[in-house]
Amino acid sequence: MQRFVLSHPYLLSSEDLSVEDVSLIFERTRFFENNSSKKDVYDDLKGYTVALAFFEPSTRTKFSFELATKRLGGECISFSTTSSSMTKGESLIDTLHTLEAMDVQIFIVRHSASGVPLLLQRNTSKIIVNAGDGRHEHPTQALLDSYTIFKHFGYLENLKVAIVGDLLHSRVARSNYLLLKKLGALVGLCGPGTLLPKFHNSWNVTVFSDIDKVIEWADAIILLRLQNERMASGLVPSVSEFAKFFGLTYERISRKPELVVLHPGPVNYGIELEYEVANLPNVLIQTQVTHGVYVRMALLSLLAKTYEFRRLR
Amino acid sequence: MQRFVLSHPYLLSSEDLSVEDVSLIFERTRFFENNSSKKDVYDDLKGYTVALAFFEPSTRTKFSFELATKRLGGECISFSTTSSSMTKGESLIDTLHTLEAMDVQIFIVRHSASGVPLLLQRNTSKIIVNAGDGRHEHPTQALLDSYTIFKHFGYLENLKVAIVGDLLHSRVARSNYLLLKKLGALVGLCGPGTLLPKFHNSWNVTVFSDIDKVIEWADAIILLRLQNERMASGLVPSVSEFAKFFGLTYERISRKPELVVLHPGPVNYGIELEYEVANLPNVLIQTQVTHGVYVRMALLSLLAKTYEFRRLR
Amino acid sequence: MQRFVLSHPYLLSSEDLSVEDVSLIFERTRFFENNSSKKDVYDDLKGYTVALAFFEPSTRTKFSFELATKRLGGECISFSTTSSSMTKGESLIDTLHTLEAMDVQIFIVRHSASGVPLLLQRNTSKIIVNAGDGRHEHPTQALLDSYTIFKHFGYLENLKVAIVGDLLHSRVARSNYLLLKKLGALVGLCGPGTLLPKFHNSWNVTVFSDIDKVIEWADAIILLRLQNERMASGLVPSVSEFAKFFGLTYERISRKPELVVLHPGPVNYGIELEYEVANLPNVLIQTQVTHGVYVRMALLSLLAKTYEFRRLR
Repeated sequence: MQRFVLSHPYLLSSEDLSVEDVSLIFERTRFFENNSSKKDVYDDLKGYTVALAFFEPSTRTKFSFELATKRLGGECISFSTTSSSMTKGESLIDTLHTLEAMDVQIFIVRHSASGVPLLLQRNTSKIIVNAGDGRHEHPTQALLDSYTIFKHFGYLENLKVAIVGDLLHSRVARSNYLLLKKLGALVGLCGPGTLLPKFHNSWNVTVFSDIDKVIEWADAIILLRLQNERMASGLVPSVSEFAKFFGLTYERISRKPELVVLHPGPVNYGIELEYEVANLPNVLIQTQVTHGVYVRMALLSLLAKTYEFRRLR
Repeated sequence: MQRFVLSHPYLLSSEDLSVEDVSLIFERTRFFENNSSKKDVYDDLKGYTVALAFFEPSTRTKFSFELATKRLGGECISFSTTSSSMTKGESLIDTLHTLEAMDVQIFIVRHSASGVPLLLQRNTSKIIVNAGDGRHEHPTQALLDSYTIFKHFGYLENLKVAIVGDLLHSRVARSNYLLLKKLGALVGLCGPGTLLPKFHNSWNVTVFSDIDKVIEWADAIILLRLQNERMASGLVPSVSEFAKFFGLTYERISRKPELVVLHPGPVNYGIELEYEVANLPNVLIQTQVTHGVYVRMALLSLLAKTYEFRRLR
Repeated sequence: MQRFVLSHPYLLSSEDLSVEDVSLIFERTRFFENNSSKKDVYDDLKGYTVALAFFEPSTRTKFSFELATKRLGGECISFSTTSSSMTKGESLIDTLHTLEAMDVQIFIVRHSASGVPLLLQRNTSKIIVNAGDGRHEHPTQALLDSYTIFKHFGYLENLKVAIVGDLLHSRVARSNYLLLKKLGALVGLCGPGTLLPKFHNSWNVTVFSDIDKVIEWADAIILLRLQNERMASGLVPSVSEFAKFFGLTYERISRKPELVVLHPGPVNYGIELEYEVANLPNVLIQTQVTHGVYVRMALLSLLAKTYEFRRLR
């Protein structure tokens, strides 16, 4: 019998996903993508209420989950620290239990502190999805990145994918690294020595010291956003210095136009990427955003199925 | 002929409700509760637009009304002072009339000033629901508390219910006192002398000076939240002093495990209630939250019926 | 064959509208108005997602568009600069492209800078609606004002309509002037010399130096809101001075009770308008609000049709 549920009724880390889970998610993503022009409203989340708990500002991830929920027939409730009574000092776990008691079944959580989604998952039987926690993980970004690369090439096995930029502080880098390795890709890392994770030696990766070597090696590269905070912190000598060694210029990409380029957005133009590069055919930043909605529809749909399946057992 | 509408097409105070009104509301609440697993979307509010006008931060009450509205098929619009043009100095009554002109029929109002819901009701023929006004009233909290106690015991007549804590400043206390008396319960009050309402002598209540005596007397107790402001105001000598005489400890509840405990939330653990107490079977804080949605569905459904009935007469 | 689409799949300025466009919009507005009691939900925007991008605080315009969208079966997403990652320095155009990639098809934009809607329209093939940009234009306000006057009189041709107040800074004045001229009305202007647009000599208008002369001349007057900023800027000697020469008092309107009065709201009572005037039968401020929702439903419905029609060609 074919599996139709995921290993877990939550997603905190790329490590929660088996290869079979990813296959299921990609298959369902493809279905939603293929039927997108029909403007259908699905009923996968009919009767479900999804809490969008974004404790950090967000445009694309929050709207992506919101649209995914609504297109599956679910209801959203949104809250921010400023408008909710979290200002009264109400704890996160109390708020979780309160919403649970109101029959909210899915919690999409973004928080500046690593581990908040795990803390919540330990305290509930409901569905928790990590939408980015501190420097830890952002697994739905990794899913949509892998889906985008997979769809472009038709495979991931032994494909050379490099992650470029501030690897040390990036939750996108960590989730992508874990997922790409699991799916059989060869992973390369490239960034300033001050921004390499300390433990990268134990990771089975190739490390590159400048972007030209990475471009030569890679089939696809994922550029990371350089956070403003980092620029001010002394870890990067100067922004122009960073751009010189690690920025993707028009001149650089011209040498290998077949190279596939991803970026989680929002882009700092002139730093990670020259403005002229953004509209080249193999620069898939807009495609990533489009896939993001379908991947999250697929994920939420399968998590709800997994949750129901376990409840009935 | 059986009544099927309420006495008034609004709810500003527990005093607006007759005993028959409460029966109607509880009956409909029970219906929604019994059918909750079906994930039905009802159409009691189809074509209705509900304005959530929360001028104080709130998590549970706001979401409770929002979910109640959506599960009845109604539309919500939310506004806060910061994002609306109330910052332009637009008056509350002007905003009321503006939304009325847009065919908004139900206004759920929370405000730090006592009397704001009454002010609005005097200026409209639409439905106004008080979701907490200053130190005045919070009648839907009283409805859900009474429903929770009623459901547990099967009756309210002559049941001994105590309200414990900062009685002076609490809109929850006032609304509960009024509703419980109306429904035939015997009401006890317990709190520091500085936090007793001045006029409690004229209320037909028993007053207790410490929580041990209340526990002995009561069948159910409603703990009130000690507001942070109060702690700083000099009305309470110290938080630990308050907790010593009025906090529900594990040791205290162990002497009478059948005692039913309610709290409107969010709880200040270690002050009104020890953390260990929260998960005991007769501590119904989560149940109150769950009932809150059903009670508000019932209320909104009946208010809409009452409004239509009066309009057609 | 009768036309059933608009000249453009966007609305940035009253100048984008032909006389035939306005006829189409008014006809559809009338349809929605006539069927308003039925509480129907239409499907004109089924499958459409509308972004409400209000970068200035707003109550009436934002809710008007939100309700119009929902009553047409569309989904809304709202964002403000504070909660979105615009705080990360993400540019407006990037945000536009991100939402476009998520299949958002309609953007309702309010911004303090003139020209922002035009900038966005130049960068997208999706539908942009100007909901007020700086001192430039507010074309849907003009549509609802013209509809309100047209409905009252049954015609606009040669009708005398005066715009009174701070003409210099008003986007409402500009959009109304352009639309009223196009529809054949005779336009009068009245305001302090310091608040007259410099180029009014080239406009084909009659200028009046005080409100008494305007009242005598006009069939209908549109009062403008005096912005608080203006009062502080020295352009108006004093608020009471302004009210004395340009405020509509009860005494003044009593001399011509058949005069039709409009105001975009929120009103500064005692400045543009005495409180007692607001409830007179020919003061149509609440009617404007009601018409606002129907006009915006008509506009969004026709823009969506126009967009589809062009896409299929």
